[in-house]
Amino acid sequence: MNNPSTAISAESQGSPGPFYGRAVPGRGERLIIGVAGGTGSGKTTVARKLRQSFPPNVVQLIPQDSYYRDQTHIPFEERLKTNYDHPLAFDNDLLIEHLDALMQGEAVEQPVYSFITHTRAQETRRLMPSQILVVEGILVLEDARLRERMDIKIYVQTDADVRFVRRLRRDLVERGRSVDAVIEQYLGVVRPMHMQFIEPTKRYADVIVPEGGDNVVAIDLLCSKIHSILEHPETRQPSSMPAGTGME
Amino acid sequence: MNNPSTAISAESQGSPGPFYGRAVPGRGERLIIGVAGGTGSGKTTVARKLRQSFPPNVVQLIPQDSYYRDQTHIPFEERLKTNYDHPLAFDNDLLIEHLDALMQGEAVEQPVYSFITHTRAQETRRLMPSQILVVEGILVLEDARLRERMDIKIYVQTDADVRFVRRLRRDLVERGRSVDAVIEQYLGVVRPMHMQFIEPTKRYADVIVPEGGDNVVAIDLLCSKIHSILEHPETRQPSSMPAGTGME
Repeated sequence: MNNPSTAISAESQGSPGPFYGRAVPGRGERLIIGVAGGTGSGKTTVARKLRQSFPPNVVQLIPQDSYYRDQTHIPFEERLKTNYDHPLAFDNDLLIEHLDALMQGEAVEQPVYSFITHTRAQETRRLMPSQILVVEGILVLEDARLRERMDIKIYVQTDADVRFVRRLRRDLVERGRSVDAVIEQYLGVVRPMHMQFIEPTKRYADVIVPEGGDNVVAIDLLCSKIHSILEHPETRQPSSMPAGTGME
Repeated sequence: MNNPSTAISAESQGSPGPFYGRAVPGRGERLIIGVAGGTGSGKTTVARKLRQSFPPNVVQLIPQDSYYRDQTHIPFEERLKTNYDHPLAFDNDLLIEHLDALMQGEAVEQPVYSFITHTRAQETRRLMPSQILVVEGILVLEDARLRERMDIKIYVQTDADVRFVRRLRRDLVERGRSVDAVIEQYLGVVRPMHMQFIEPTKRYADVIVPEGGDNVVAIDLLCSKIHSILEHPETRQPSSMPAGTGME
């Protein structure tokens, strides 16, 4: 049996109902939203709330975590030392390739990353194209190639102590770590990487969302704009604001 | 000649064309947006861009600066020492009274503050009710009574050095001050008051707008939401997010 993965078959597989607004979307009816922020900031909640605000399959979440580099060729002991909070830990080339394909209406095979073997799993996850791609992760605003593909760039900002408390709870409950191990990793890697690489990307954001997923007003603002682009693609901004000092 | 200042006559004077969407607006079709931020942050530009994005008289700007306290009873020499960056410099009671009246569809007599005599001028400015009130000023998010009247709370965030450069230019060119005088006032009053009173109000914001009035994406997001409320008042959020730690 053939299983063609052309744009047309992927499209018809991906959309259960009619496409939002139009039967055959062009580039103007698709958009990419970037959601960045530190560990525990609530960025995943923001991304999920955006998805829940639209009919099924209109919004596709693309976690940057799925694009950690393949480490199959590296011995297991070495993989344990990987700095997962550093920009070089991510395979942004593949992420960009996938975004471009999805924007063209093509399906992609997203890698599945195993945090047990610390490398990519054998299997992949088929992603269907959708009208809205939400790229979410700690460093999605760090790579200029990702930024220039985004229509709206969001940074979720939450106080560092609150973020640490959330991470501590999650790692104790969901990952069975000790308090000491969480603190050691936080102070030794997570915090310095946040200050060096993540927090500085806030200046590329179009909008900073305080307090993450509980911020109903901010999420509502974003949804209003997305609805407006979907219904009136001609109102789409030509491009995001260029990075700069903001002078003039 | 009578010049009645009832709600109805004020309404008909203020609106040259048909009211946006409806002939007779109720509370649901009016909204208050707060725009705060430090000196030179670009908050006034954000407020003006919002006004320009709608038909004439739909958006009314309400500068908090117009509500500096009356100092007529204070000797001129004493007035010069007033700390204009302190919350107590503002007559928020009157500002709130005016906001409530405007939201009821009544016109108000806004004070005119003179920065030459350092007190209120004899004359007032008649403000007509409008559908959108944009309250703009350094400390509009500081008073809980103001915050709870706002549908959307915005903090315009710009780096402190850029803000100082803008203020320096403005004070040199528009106000004929010396560089030394600007620096002395900045370090002696403006900066400490910013850190003590203005910057902390960022945590009450629903949305933080980086770089102010040049941020087309953020302004566009806000305008989309305002249009959406005006066209579909039932989509209005019941209230803004309560201030809190963001936990849960």
